[in-house]
Amino acid sequence: MQRFWKPGEIFPRELVPGVTAKIASGERIMFSLVTLEPNAVVPEHSHPHEQMGMMVSGTMEFSIAGETRTFSGDEIYLVPGGVPHRAVAGPDGAVALDVFAPPREEYR
Amino acid sequence: MQRFWKPGEIFPRELVPGVTAKIASGERIMFSLVTLEPNAVVPEHSHPHEQMGMMVSGTMEFSIAGETRTFSGDEIYLVPGGVPHRAVAGPDGAVALDVFAPPREEYR
Repeated sequence: MQRFWKPGEIFPRELVPGVTAKIASGERIMFSLVTLEPNAVVPEHSHPHEQMGMMVSGTMEFSIAGETRTFSGDEIYLVPGGVPHRAVAGPDGAVALDVFAPPREEYR
Repeated sequence: MQRFWKPGEIFPRELVPGVTAKIASGERIMFSLVTLEPNAVVPEHSHPHEQMGMMVSGTMEFSIAGETRTFSGDEIYLVPGGVPHRAVAGPDGAVALDVFAPPREEYR
């Protein structure tokens, strides 16, 4: 099993237009380093996996169960499994580290 | 359950001398934003929880099962459950986001 990753060497996959992710995964934890282009939108969706994330750069308007906040700096958010959520990048785009447990099989 | 955290407002707890952590946790995932002072040492230890981490700033020499690498930038590492590991901060210290699944009850 791979134990070290340089995100610069991970090929990005497109999640939705304007949003790409670099994936690294263990057995119980999956990292998804997400880059959103300016004003890119991740439409509302949900999944049974718990998700926690930390902003890396830029700003992102994030809605969790209908509650919307703008995240920046190194702020952290939690999306419990099954809860609908949606993201809109700010005018300079955003980078965030999303973490899933269990890993999302469709991203492997 | 808390869903949003500003790390600047989380009280840091000392893990070992020169190493503090800001903890935010869900049900399945725990975030530990760790700050290591220059040359600080996290002695070798292990825990049954899987651990993945991403560097935020600085450099850190990290040994996993006896294999040592120096991490910097936004590099990512995986420590499978039960595997001994050890960290030594570089001369400018380090900040890393460590993620545990399941959460470590002793950090709640």
